[in-house]
Amino acid sequence: MGRHTRGPADDRPQALAHEWSAAPSDALRWSAGGDLSAVDPSSTPGWEGGKAEATELVAAHADELSELQERLFAEGRSGGSRAVLLVLQGLDTAGKGGIVRHVVGLVDPQGVMHRSFGAPTEEEKAHGYLWRIRNALPRPGHIGVFDRSHHEQVLVVRVEGLEPRAEWEAHYDEINAFEAEVVASGTTIVKVALVISRDEQKQRLTERLERPDKYWKYDPGDIDTRLRWDDYVAAYQDMLDRTSTEVAPWYVVPADRKWFARLAVSELLLDALRSLDLGWPAADFDVEAEKRRLAGS
Amino acid sequence: MGRHTRGPADDRPQALAHEWSAAPSDALRWSAGGDLSAVDPSSTPGWEGGKAEATELVAAHADELSELQERLFAEGRSGGSRAVLLVLQGLDTAGKGGIVRHVVGLVDPQGVMHRSFGAPTEEEKAHGYLWRIRNALPRPGHIGVFDRSHHEQVLVVRVEGLEPRAEWEAHYDEINAFEAEVVASGTTIVKVALVISRDEQKQRLTERLERPDKYWKYDPGDIDTRLRWDDYVAAYQDMLDRTSTEVAPWYVVPADRKWFARLAVSELLLDALRSLDLGWPAADFDVEAEKRRLAGS
Repeated sequence: MGRHTRGPADDRPQALAHEWSAAPSDALRWSAGGDLSAVDPSSTPGWEGGKAEATELVAAHADELSELQERLFAEGRSGGSRAVLLVLQGLDTAGKGGIVRHVVGLVDPQGVMHRSFGAPTEEEKAHGYLWRIRNALPRPGHIGVFDRSHHEQVLVVRVEGLEPRAEWEAHYDEINAFEAEVVASGTTIVKVALVISRDEQKQRLTERLERPDKYWKYDPGDIDTRLRWDDYVAAYQDMLDRTSTEVAPWYVVPADRKWFARLAVSELLLDALRSLDLGWPAADFDVEAEKRRLAGS
Repeated sequence: MGRHTRGPADDRPQALAHEWSAAPSDALRWSAGGDLSAVDPSSTPGWEGGKAEATELVAAHADELSELQERLFAEGRSGGSRAVLLVLQGLDTAGKGGIVRHVVGLVDPQGVMHRSFGAPTEEEKAHGYLWRIRNALPRPGHIGVFDRSHHEQVLVVRVEGLEPRAEWEAHYDEINAFEAEVVASGTTIVKVALVISRDEQKQRLTERLERPDKYWKYDPGDIDTRLRWDDYVAAYQDMLDRTSTEVAPWYVVPADRKWFARLAVSELLLDALRSLDLGWPAADFDVEAEKRRLAGS
């Protein structure tokens, strides 16, 4: 499909959505037996449009995303227990922060619970690795966003040898059990692995070293991580193979093109919200009686 | 000052800023001995423009607000201890939520820690009233947003008689001591009391009762609160008189015009960020050496 003709303004989101040749959730969902190293980080699976159309579709879907978030929030305030958790994983510079700013930033901050997970603090270390994760789970009605997550326990912990193999090997099943429990409690989990190329990472790190307003994003440890690239790819491969489940599947998003990664995550998030079939909560009071009380007040 | 002539695009924020006849922080700051009941909720203290100019100025200042927030965040990630805390108080329908959506929503969600305080949970009740407040204070580099706050301890608690007088009377000094400690730790506190009229509240509550997509925002208890209007005004008056301090002053924002309240809070927040004189953190590594490491990686 090439450029489409422009329809009336109201049809625009729908027309743009047709640039997807497959539903994003199908095109990006990790399939068992897949080969991560075969994923082209500059590809745009399922998307036949370009950057302009992608940017336009994100903007066109912003109102729906925002309204569904408000419905979820309303449900949470009315006794509902559902929530959504967006998990973002990816190597340094993969664009996790940009997605938070440009995609999560489209909805009301009141309904967002964002948390970044770096190296654990002393207090956190005194507990199991899921302790700080549990504490950061979204409350009912909220969209939680994890910038890195419990999955680092089978990524950095494994690659850097922070635990012996027998320990980190046990985490895959623990993670699956934990996520099944979270899903059973009413939280829809959307797990996104952002995939960038070595070249693109080099370019992004170079930019951080060339711009004084980006120094703060640079960490010399990023190079150490970079030097273990293949080990990380292997760890990501196993994470995908062993923690992509029916209830909490992984979506693999090529991220060399920032505009595609942002489009993909906004569509996956929208998809998750749509799947909840959110209405507005019914009044749990007598509307007419309250109108009379208000009139007399 | 009436309509100004339009200058070049670059001068626009500055030209619009001139619609302020006094700095917002001066025009809105609570002055000792002031009379809250004399504040006109439909006034726009210090602002000589209209709605269009206000909306335009908020948009024009969005980039600066966003960049200063990023600098604050960068500082926090680089070992700095400073943060900003925006405290929003106001009767039901005063527009606290709208400010979060439209003003706080202008910055990166990654750097925002938002918390609403409703009636305390059982766990929270088991602790002192400042316990849940301390737990929600913004981490270094963040902008914290409190939708209601510890000040409810001298508002709802007082008016509804949830504690005997001797207890709530003690809270004013406790609050001041607590805030002095928070400020001393590096957090700039911006306290905003939104003031609406009885008529405007009636209109907004009516809307909530007429629109099924607004039912969830309505609580029959709002009418009970409304029936104690004068008691709440008296409690707000004392709160302003007794907890507006040099280190954590109150700003009183007339809020019958939503556009003015949003403008005012965005300007007060911008002002707080500007006063921090935020630069970009210097590199804590050898930039040239890192460039060489990166090149060889």
